[in-house]
Amino acid sequence: MKIGFIGLGHMGAGMVANLLRAGHDVTVYNRTRARAEPLASKGATIASDISEACRGDAVFTMLANDDAVRRVVFGDKGVLASLSPGAVHISSSTISIALAEDLERAHGNAGQLYISAPVFGRPDVAAAGNLFVVAAGPGAAIGKVSELLDAIGQRTFVVSETPKSANLIKLSGNFLIASVFETLGEAMALVDKAGIDRHGYLEILTSTLFGAPVYKTYGGLVADRKFEPAGFAAPLGHKDIRLVLAAADSLDVPMPVAGLLHDRFLALGAAGGNHLDWSAVGALPARDAGTFVFPQAVSKGVGKP
Amino acid sequence: MKIGFIGLGHMGAGMVANLLRAGHDVTVYNRTRARAEPLASKGATIASDISEACRGDAVFTMLANDDAVRRVVFGDKGVLASLSPGAVHISSSTISIALAEDLERAHGNAGQLYISAPVFGRPDVAAAGNLFVVAAGPGAAIGKVSELLDAIGQRTFVVSETPKSANLIKLSGNFLIASVFETLGEAMALVDKAGIDRHGYLEILTSTLFGAPVYKTYGGLVADRKFEPAGFAAPLGHKDIRLVLAAADSLDVPMPVAGLLHDRFLALGAAGGNHLDWSAVGALPARDAGTFVFPQAVSKGVGKP
Amino acid sequence: MKIGFIGLGHMGAGMVANLLRAGHDVTVYNRTRARAEPLASKGATIASDISEACRGDAVFTMLANDDAVRRVVFGDKGVLASLSPGAVHISSSTISIALAEDLERAHGNAGQLYISAPVFGRPDVAAAGNLFVVAAGPGAAIGKVSELLDAIGQRTFVVSETPKSANLIKLSGNFLIASVFETLGEAMALVDKAGIDRHGYLEILTSTLFGAPVYKTYGGLVADRKFEPAGFAAPLGHKDIRLVLAAADSLDVPMPVAGLLHDRFLALGAAGGNHLDWSAVGALPARDAGTFVFPQAVSKGVGKP
Amino acid sequence: MKIGFIGLGHMGAGMVANLLRAGHDVTVYNRTRARAEPLASKGATIASDISEACRGDAVFTMLANDDAVRRVVFGDKGVLASLSPGAVHISSSTISIALAEDLERAHGNAGQLYISAPVFGRPDVAAAGNLFVVAAGPGAAIGKVSELLDAIGQRTFVVSETPKSANLIKLSGNFLIASVFETLGEAMALVDKAGIDRHGYLEILTSTLFGAPVYKTYGGLVADRKFEPAGFAAPLGHKDIRLVLAAADSLDVPMPVAGLLHDRFLALGAAGGNHLDWSAVGALPARDAGTFVFPQAVSKGVGKP
Repeated sequence: MKIGFIGLGHMGAGMVANLLRAGHDVTVYNRTRARAEPLASKGATIASDISEACRGDAVFTMLANDDAVRRVVFGDKGVLASLSPGAVHISSSTISIALAEDLERAHGNAGQLYISAPVFGRPDVAAAGNLFVVAAGPGAAIGKVSELLDAIGQRTFVVSETPKSANLIKLSGNFLIASVFETLGEAMALVDKAGIDRHGYLEILTSTLFGAPVYKTYGGLVADRKFEPAGFAAPLGHKDIRLVLAAADSLDVPMPVAGLLHDRFLALGAAGGNHLDWSAVGALPARDAGTFVFPQAVSKGVGKP
Repeated sequence: MKIGFIGLGHMGAGMVANLLRAGHDVTVYNRTRARAEPLASKGATIASDISEACRGDAVFTMLANDDAVRRVVFGDKGVLASLSPGAVHISSSTISIALAEDLERAHGNAGQLYISAPVFGRPDVAAAGNLFVVAAGPGAAIGKVSELLDAIGQRTFVVSETPKSANLIKLSGNFLIASVFETLGEAMALVDKAGIDRHGYLEILTSTLFGAPVYKTYGGLVADRKFEPAGFAAPLGHKDIRLVLAAADSLDVPMPVAGLLHDRFLALGAAGGNHLDWSAVGALPARDAGTFVFPQAVSKGVGKP
Repeated sequence: MKIGFIGLGHMGAGMVANLLRAGHDVTVYNRTRARAEPLASKGATIASDISEACRGDAVFTMLANDDAVRRVVFGDKGVLASLSPGAVHISSSTISIALAEDLERAHGNAGQLYISAPVFGRPDVAAAGNLFVVAAGPGAAIGKVSELLDAIGQRTFVVSETPKSANLIKLSGNFLIASVFETLGEAMALVDKAGIDRHGYLEILTSTLFGAPVYKTYGGLVADRKFEPAGFAAPLGHKDIRLVLAAADSLDVPMPVAGLLHDRFLALGAAGGNHLDWSAVGALPARDAGTFVFPQAVSKGVGKP
Repeated sequence: MKIGFIGLGHMGAGMVANLLRAGHDVTVYNRTRARAEPLASKGATIASDISEACRGDAVFTMLANDDAVRRVVFGDKGVLASLSPGAVHISSSTISIALAEDLERAHGNAGQLYISAPVFGRPDVAAAGNLFVVAAGPGAAIGKVSELLDAIGQRTFVVSETPKSANLIKLSGNFLIASVFETLGEAMALVDKAGIDRHGYLEILTSTLFGAPVYKTYGGLVADRKFEPAGFAAPLGHKDIRLVLAAADSLDVPMPVAGLLHDRFLALGAAGGNHLDWSAVGALPARDAGTFVFPQAVSKGVGKP
């Protein structure tokens, strides 16, 4: 299938590699061209502007945030202006519900198809083609591109005819991951202050009721208090919590733990921790318990007592 | 080994059955004798008072709360007065840190041994001998009774020389379980109000990052909104959150999610839900979102507007 | 002084009356002309469009929210396009920090002056000329219009050269008022459930340490549980809490009580209470304690148990 | 009237002085006799044990906490054993609801009268005889001692026939005071980080809607960030919040702000602030915003990064 792919960050590069491996003809575009070049050697065509990446039957966008997606889609010679009627825009970025609604409407008006297909998994998982894909949109559109979704992930969940549903599932999933930082952070602050080894504690949890990747992977980070280098930087996690809160606001759904997480990310930023992995919010309960300080908070001599 | 077992509730009965199956000579005691009788047919001796259950090398207590344990241990002709020097009291009840300290001290003064060995698992797991046992206490004491612990569980985690450490791990584990009710309840209230099927949503979660028993078992209850009959009644869960908060208070560890859960259990009680399973706190976010009411709250016509 | 006034809601009408009384020549504009007419009999000139209200030395805007202010100021033939160089735009609306920044910049670029001058007080206070005015902006601009500010209020607080500072003070003041609904609501839910009369309780508070208008006026509403008709409707209060949270977000200031209030307003909306006075959030603690239900929540039969 | 007074701390000493001034015959007792001596010169008789202070028509107790009251009342030769039938025990200490119930029952069984009469006001107010007294108990008992209550305070509020009601009002009043630390602390952290002067901000608040002693007195402390010497030490305030939470727990009343305050006091303790005034919790929002550190937190080099 002839397709385009816009956005070659850590996630996008891995996804393209798997699309190429599955035999698709992929034209790639990235604002910083240098990130596209390694993919040329794997068979990708490098587009010199967005419109060139929109000449196939489908185009993926995998970008950092709403603003980037808006620029790429609604901008001059953007996706909306360039995509052929009947072609499919597959949006895999983690975006707001409001933007997903705008995209659905705009592409519909232009006679194009639109689906939301955000993914679960870190860059190494994307590189291995083992992402989980959550797809929503008109059945016909999903049907057209299902082989593409299969190429990037180990499993595709088709959840709804309404694209934004997939985005809400992705956002709420990130909320649940961040919730584990908080709750595990509280429990570890408690047992740690009582003299119990954090790693031994985590091993008991993950050997019993909590034997899921979210506890194993992230629990280890919280237990280690090792938040650098960031796999997923705190401001990105914070952005997703804001998007969850925005969705909750528009639907009249009070979410106290989401509110708490928002405050945690603010406190992390105020403590100078925006370069850290988002799991660093799991260290704030220990900070409040007086058993941990963020190194930079000390060295910077924050505060005017 | 000749041992005693005090407390034959849903958990205790299954544990005794496995101790008998492993060939131990078990004398059982329960305040309501009727609960002891089915075990006689499996080979247990029925004690007519607590002291008769304390004549062996070890005695288990598996009781509902601190008060029950205090009565059984410190009462007239209780465990403390009856156990032989060098014999081991194995406390498997979910009790407070403060009581664990008292038990350690009292048994030490009496020349007896004491370990805390709370367990993770529901009654069916206890019956199958598949509990997880978290044990703490002097190495010599644990060594003496390790075959007993092996008989009741699939795995024993020895965590510390200090008995109360095991209790804190158990309590904090229950806090983490209850946290999942809250966070999953918030996420489900959100996606449900957006028109996404709760069960389909849960399937995505548990197929990906959240594939742990705690999400599968309890997530199903929250998705079903089926909280009767109670596997573990809300007031028991609330009691454990109170014990977590008490431990956190004594150690100066702020735990905002534990505080939130405490409020949730109070609200559940105020809504007439104390007969429900503790996972019913996971329905309160939907209550606050206006998409769920507890049936009894309506029928009782609560409120004086 | 020859001035204009745009926005003749409950607050604006009272403010104009006092400006007329002080002898100023006021041209008024309101989208719905009918609201302007009663002021003509008091001496105001009625403008047929926004630009006509911008021909004097200063123009007030007193509108419902950011959107309304943006339309009136930045729209075709709006304030920005119509005001003379050197004339002053006095923004008394409760608006976001971000909009205050935009207004300051835009008027500066146009050679006009801009000050933020939000007010504290309800409509009856505005009618009596007893508002408190919080003003911020360049000293020269404030100096030019100080007699106008004196005409509408009993006292003007000049707080900063930066206009948005006044808006932040107004917003944070509304946060503090709403906080009293919550904290008094919690305290009253408690004493009420213990059998203590809510009004007697309030009298003790306001006779002792809490003898301020915020407790007297709003405390009475919470004690009465009388939230209709709305003096200031819940969605307006909610909007201000959102603006506080937006300011806190941009400054990295965690505000847990503001987050709680946001959730309370969502829960109030979900319970069908958006037509009520904003003090109705003070009844949610009683709702959670099981001693109060919002009448409409029952009659609508909300919920799908 | 011949009376006794037990407990001569900062509050008690001032209360006794006013009882003497009103012409009463007061026998005083304090565990540390030295504190009693200054009162002898004002006409008080010094008792050498508790029972000597219980030989009149009434006896006040004004002690630090539940434990102290239990010792003094239920101990050997304590108030319960010593007071004449028909005499009145006036408990002015800030105690738990549960203890108030116990006292009511015990004195009733002994044929004695019991009232709770906690007070609002700091030591200087007590010295001036300007306390506010909140009294509850049987009408006959209150009638007997009303001239005593009038002697210590500027006004007595008689609230209920049930003594514990007065204690609940006192406790919930302290909750409301502490709530002001939190909410004002959040608002000040916000405006301070935006560059607005904290004292100027407070002046606006207290000149307008927030013109109550609680904002004036405590707001100044929060704005100054001057928490030493402690007028009322943080652990005492924390104790009262715990008693509020205990009352709320027994009545099924969720109180999220009380829960937040509890966490704030824990965080303050963990930061080494237990010697500070309880208003220091109002500095924690600034701590979380990165604009304040408790001096001792730095000098102690807390933390193991």
